[in-house]
Amino acid sequence: MTTATAERTVDVFLGGRMEAVQPAKAHHRSGLEALLLSAAISPDFAGTVIDLGAGAGVAGMAIAMRCSGARVTLVERDAEAIACAREALARSVNAAFSARVSIVAADVVMPEAERVQAGIAREAADVVVMNPPFRDAGAGSASPSAARHAAHVLDGGVEPWIRSAASALKPGGRLVVIYRADGLPEVLAALAGRFGDVAVLPVHPRAGRSALRILVAATKGSRGEMRLLPGLTLHEPSGSAYLPEVERVLRGGASIAEVHPAWRGIA
Amino acid sequence: MTTATAERTVDVFLGGRMEAVQPAKAHHRSGLEALLLSAAISPDFAGTVIDLGAGAGVAGMAIAMRCSGARVTLVERDAEAIACAREALARSVNAAFSARVSIVAADVVMPEAERVQAGIAREAADVVVMNPPFRDAGAGSASPSAARHAAHVLDGGVEPWIRSAASALKPGGRLVVIYRADGLPEVLAALAGRFGDVAVLPVHPRAGRSALRILVAATKGSRGEMRLLPGLTLHEPSGSAYLPEVERVLRGGASIAEVHPAWRGIA
Repeated sequence: MTTATAERTVDVFLGGRMEAVQPAKAHHRSGLEALLLSAAISPDFAGTVIDLGAGAGVAGMAIAMRCSGARVTLVERDAEAIACAREALARSVNAAFSARVSIVAADVVMPEAERVQAGIAREAADVVVMNPPFRDAGAGSASPSAARHAAHVLDGGVEPWIRSAASALKPGGRLVVIYRADGLPEVLAALAGRFGDVAVLPVHPRAGRSALRILVAATKGSRGEMRLLPGLTLHEPSGSAYLPEVERVLRGGASIAEVHPAWRGIA
Repeated sequence: MTTATAERTVDVFLGGRMEAVQPAKAHHRSGLEALLLSAAISPDFAGTVIDLGAGAGVAGMAIAMRCSGARVTLVERDAEAIACAREALARSVNAAFSARVSIVAADVVMPEAERVQAGIAREAADVVVMNPPFRDAGAGSASPSAARHAAHVLDGGVEPWIRSAASALKPGGRLVVIYRADGLPEVLAALAGRFGDVAVLPVHPRAGRSALRILVAATKGSRGEMRLLPGLTLHEPSGSAYLPEVERVLRGGASIAEVHPAWRGIA
């Protein structure tokens, strides 16, 4: 499964409490979105989490690190990404949580029977998280490699991903998605009829700017109404520095609810 | 058309520059939503505006007052609401704009042929605004009168309203809707395939609280992506006072773009 010649890097996250191994080139590299997704889960959470399309496992491992009661399954189809995740789980700094992380080699969008066969049981997970591949509008269609392209573009859109999440979740289980903001209509349409009690958190690059990302939480089978939460802003008004409360999430290991009270009780 | 015995009130808006006549009881009374809707339109706008489901005409008249180049058609089915609008247009304080406001008695959701017959031409309007009736979640189903009930509840949802707007707008024309925030999935679904370049402005009662209203603008026939704008907050952290910038909109006659730069260029 591993490619011995692949160039990989070790990236340090959460102030050194977690290390990820990622291909140095060619693949989509995880970072901000995966960390925000992991910080969306309350540190008090205890139960099973599936990270659908986990890539090198940054979000799922960060959840295992942040939530001592979480057992996490990384679901990924790409062999090199899986090899990176395995290498990361073997690193000593990750020993505090690696026993609670497992890997399933499967394509998120393959038929349910095949997913179950691969090890993703029906209606078994308490939480599903996903950071589906996307390409930002305006980023162009050129991509330096097929793998990077595959990680950035969803051929069938987000709907098959949300369908897979609905299959894997217990009734009443919670889905948390991070996605590009202009995909909100697509996400809401895919949730309709399957999920309720939807909470949408706009993530703005700077105060006064349109959201570039959304964090969306939803409960399987609920009929509850949608809530549109006050947005989270990432950066100072100018420059590339994150706001102090965002630094607390990305480096300090704080949850989003700790720094953004509107998210309390959401996931 | 008028009910001579009806008790009506004269309500002063926009710091005294506009007066509306509304039934004292029984009907839905316009206010905040209608004024925000009117303030969503740039004062520079020149062209034709249709206010679908105009009620007593607060939003449409406020647009005529704010935008000296706007010609406004109020579309309303309720005879008493129409009578109120006519009475308002005859009041002297409204003389500055009343010649640019006309009334069409029609049901927003009747078949297109009947709407055209009533005077709503196909593909003729530059802008359509609407504040469709809604009842806030949790407000209960009891309603003191049938008229109030009819004004607050949309039997067929917002989709037939958006379909009518698409019919009435020129290609490239702009729709602006104010609606309850938890109706965002329904609004986005109804816009899909008909409108693009959608801008969503969450309207929060207070900082840190979920949005209760959304202002949504969209362009007929566009393929542009959705934008999720930074939210507009109405009230001080405690108490019932509006924030100074919101007072400027509600009493001072400022447009939303003037006090909330994220809305600039939107409508």
